[in-house]
Amino acid sequence: MHLAAFVTAGPGRPGGWRYPDSVPGWLGAEYYQNIARTLEDGRFDLAFFADILSVPDRFGSSTDSQLRNGALGSLRLDPLHVLTSMGAVTKHLGLAATVSTTYAQPFTVARSFATLDHLTAGRAAWNVVTSFQESEARNFNRDEQFPREKRYERADEFLEVAGKLWDSWEDDALVLDAQAPLFAEPSKVHAIDHKGEWFTVQGPLNVPRPPQGYPVVIQAGASAKGKDFAARWSDVIFCSHASLESAQDFYREIKERAAAHGRDPRQVKILPSIAPVVGPTTEVARQTADLLFDLVPPLGGLSTLAYHLDVDLSTFPLDERLPDVEVPGVEGHYREVREITEREGLTLRELGKQYGGRVEGGFVGTGADVADGLEQWFTEGACDGFMVQAPYQPGGFEDFTRQVVPELQKRGLFRTEYEGATLRENLGLHRSEAGEWSNRAPKQPSAAK
Amino acid sequence: MHLAAFVTAGPGRPGGWRYPDSVPGWLGAEYYQNIARTLEDGRFDLAFFADILSVPDRFGSSTDSQLRNGALGSLRLDPLHVLTSMGAVTKHLGLAATVSTTYAQPFTVARSFATLDHLTAGRAAWNVVTSFQESEARNFNRDEQFPREKRYERADEFLEVAGKLWDSWEDDALVLDAQAPLFAEPSKVHAIDHKGEWFTVQGPLNVPRPPQGYPVVIQAGASAKGKDFAARWSDVIFCSHASLESAQDFYREIKERAAAHGRDPRQVKILPSIAPVVGPTTEVARQTADLLFDLVPPLGGLSTLAYHLDVDLSTFPLDERLPDVEVPGVEGHYREVREITEREGLTLRELGKQYGGRVEGGFVGTGADVADGLEQWFTEGACDGFMVQAPYQPGGFEDFTRQVVPELQKRGLFRTEYEGATLRENLGLHRSEAGEWSNRAPKQPSAAK
Ligand SMILES: Cc1cc2nc3c(=O)[nH]c(=O)nc-3n(C[C@H](O)[C@H](O)[C@H](O)COP(=O)(O)O)c2cc1C
Ligand SMILES: Cc1cc2nc3c(=O)[nH]c(=O)nc-3n(C[C@H](O)[C@H](O)[C@H](O)COP(=O)(O)O)c2cc1C
Repeated sequence: MHLAAFVTAGPGRPGGWRYPDSVPGWLGAEYYQNIARTLEDGRFDLAFFADILSVPDRFGSSTDSQLRNGALGSLRLDPLHVLTSMGAVTKHLGLAATVSTTYAQPFTVARSFATLDHLTAGRAAWNVVTSFQESEARNFNRDEQFPREKRYERADEFLEVAGKLWDSWEDDALVLDAQAPLFAEPSKVHAIDHKGEWFTVQGPLNVPRPPQGYPVVIQAGASAKGKDFAARWSDVIFCSHASLESAQDFYREIKERAAAHGRDPRQVKILPSIAPVVGPTTEVARQTADLLFDLVPPLGGLSTLAYHLDVDLSTFPLDERLPDVEVPGVEGHYREVREITEREGLTLRELGKQYGGRVEGGFVGTGADVADGLEQWFTEGACDGFMVQAPYQPGGFEDFTRQVVPELQKRGLFRTEYEGATLRENLGLHRSEAGEWSNRAPKQPSAAK
Repeated sequence: MHLAAFVTAGPGRPGGWRYPDSVPGWLGAEYYQNIARTLEDGRFDLAFFADILSVPDRFGSSTDSQLRNGALGSLRLDPLHVLTSMGAVTKHLGLAATVSTTYAQPFTVARSFATLDHLTAGRAAWNVVTSFQESEARNFNRDEQFPREKRYERADEFLEVAGKLWDSWEDDALVLDAQAPLFAEPSKVHAIDHKGEWFTVQGPLNVPRPPQGYPVVIQAGASAKGKDFAARWSDVIFCSHASLESAQDFYREIKERAAAHGRDPRQVKILPSIAPVVGPTTEVARQTADLLFDLVPPLGGLSTLAYHLDVDLSTFPLDERLPDVEVPGVEGHYREVREITEREGLTLRELGKQYGGRVEGGFVGTGADVADGLEQWFTEGACDGFMVQAPYQPGGFEDFTRQVVPELQKRGLFRTEYEGATLRENLGLHRSEAGEWSNRAPKQPSAAK
């Protein structure tokens, strides 16, 4: 079983920031370094940071409700720097940053991850997103977003170019022979001369090939286009499900898609997101879950949901049910929300509270209770492990590490020591040979601009 | 007196990588963390990283000579990540990264420095460059560079936007009142709605105002346009001179320009670059300097010079003097090179060796000898301190810290303890109020696109 931690560099789950145990040190490096140490003690595979390139303003076309209520994404430090700080105090923990392909350039991003991978001796991972908020487009010179289709076309080419740049230094190009002198062997460092629809990049990169070959790639696309992209490129897939059944369906579908892309399905790890609440007794855990639920400002939950769905929910009556809507944002979250609304007959206000306070996966209880649930999902073909959210930060990670991890270890479901030197090794993924990604890239309709 | 260290995340001075004491650990975090500790022991104001967004290929239109000889810039890790690692093991050392305004977006860069400044509690500095190699343009979708004039226009607007983004959260916008609940006060977080020639950015930034207000700004422009830009924006100016006299002239000129821009000239610190060689005796220091000189591959020096001047020096005969050439690159380096060529009657090959091995400032000797030289420059109006290069890395910084710093401290020229909590305070610079940069920006010829 693999475990990733969903850490937020800012307020996490709506209401979590109001929990008494939540230390308001989010802006300093020490806060993240302490979480990193906790996660490494718990033998987590990696720490993961989500990201967004704006303060979301979908609810009421304004950032007001978002900021007042501390909804998810109200502030976020640049995840790459936070991870570098965490890498400085750990030796094994993988470090996963979300970076968008829509508002960055491949040379910059390839270099950034190559640097992180070198500095941490092979622990870098990249959550590839295409961004889906208009407010992000408006911070990058555009009135509106590219349509989804275009964003994924750009993402495919972006990854192709990044792969070429990581391959541009052969593994043994750096010689460092002081006598000769021969610093690097010029015949092993190559221009890439990429000319595509979106990018023209000469190369080579000015950083030698990363220790892992390529950083580990994570993706969470939920549309058909997004799932296809994920099956082509991802080592790890991150998802969100309201039930065991829907997780099982998704698991089967993605493994089939990966095989259809000519990949070994075992080389694609699927980690659903869970938000367990653990306590010394089932009763204490339930009370904590209730307290956390009480702390969610309904408009905080709705602002977060408005951002996730990319739908202005302020235009619907708060005391009625959310009608069917077109969702340009994350379809997976919408499916979840429809399921909850129908099942529990919720008004929009109640849905806001529920969405902000929901315990994904429904795991509440003692370490053994939660381990039972995880064991079931894992052994019944719903996943290869989990992306663990802390209901409150940093305490939630300490509770999970102290109470759930030992249970999983006792049952032989989870490692007691790190297996490998790099993140790829710990995840059971092979090191990528040069050229692997160029072969994965979809053939481009037109090679020249 | 202020001291900055010119650290390279890759091979430094041509030949330096061949020095026996130079540890080839450049790709790992520990190497930089050790340098950071040395510099903090020596009470340095800051560590500085230069940057380039390509492997230079100016010499012979190829990266071959560059890579073979380990010329400056053959490889370079992303400086921002290296600094974050160094910040994780220090408490006072300032952290200065070079980032180009020509190939990045203001939202990304403003967020990156705001994050670094928060994580390190106010120690971030930005060396603003506009880039000057064609090879950089070709890694970012362009066949050729924008002309210098355009690059500086873009840089002015880039800094204006970055300043607005840092101001977009008022200093006290983050409230964190769990009772109310009030996470952030919406009326103190502002969209910036910037619409300019180069950038359209809505804002706000998704990171609160940095501890220093704005990060410390460093600049090294050498053209008239570049010096003007530096006088408008810089807190610290980095330069390179072959003699005391030329340093004094430059010092006077820049302070006058700053005053002409309505700024207090004392709020602009001028740090010439020096490359001292220190030894236990004058004789040992001289021998070390000679050894270092011997280690410079002439073509390594020439590849570096070709990149600095942006002139393909492979087209000139190696055994004749360099004729007068048009220099699109760094004019200051060209002036230096002309001075040396004439004074010493050097062939191009000899010049390559000389350029790669030159001891900027000419400071070679015991700690006391070097301190004498620095004292003279400092007290005779040539500078406010120095940017110290290590002739070999990391040992050069240890030698300087152990042998020169105590001499400077004994004479009362240099701090024995850090004065302040932030880099601005240690540099004797005021904390920037919101709006300061908007007032500095040149009035734009046209406000709309
Ligand atoms: C669990 C989960 C986490 C996600 N994290 C991010 C994120 O950090 N940043 C982001 O821009 N998008 C994030 N997304 C959005 C996805 O990358 C994707 O854009 C979204 O699911 C819509 O899918 P589609 O692009 O295939 O339509 C996340 C989605 C899910 C399901
Ligand atoms: C000491 C010194 C250090 C410099 N460091 C960098 C650097 O790291 N990256 C870069 O692109 N340019 C660097 N430059 C170049 C300057 O930013 C500037 O582009 C150059 O001096 C040409 O000046 P101009 O742009 O005013 O013509 C440096 C220049 C000097 C003198």
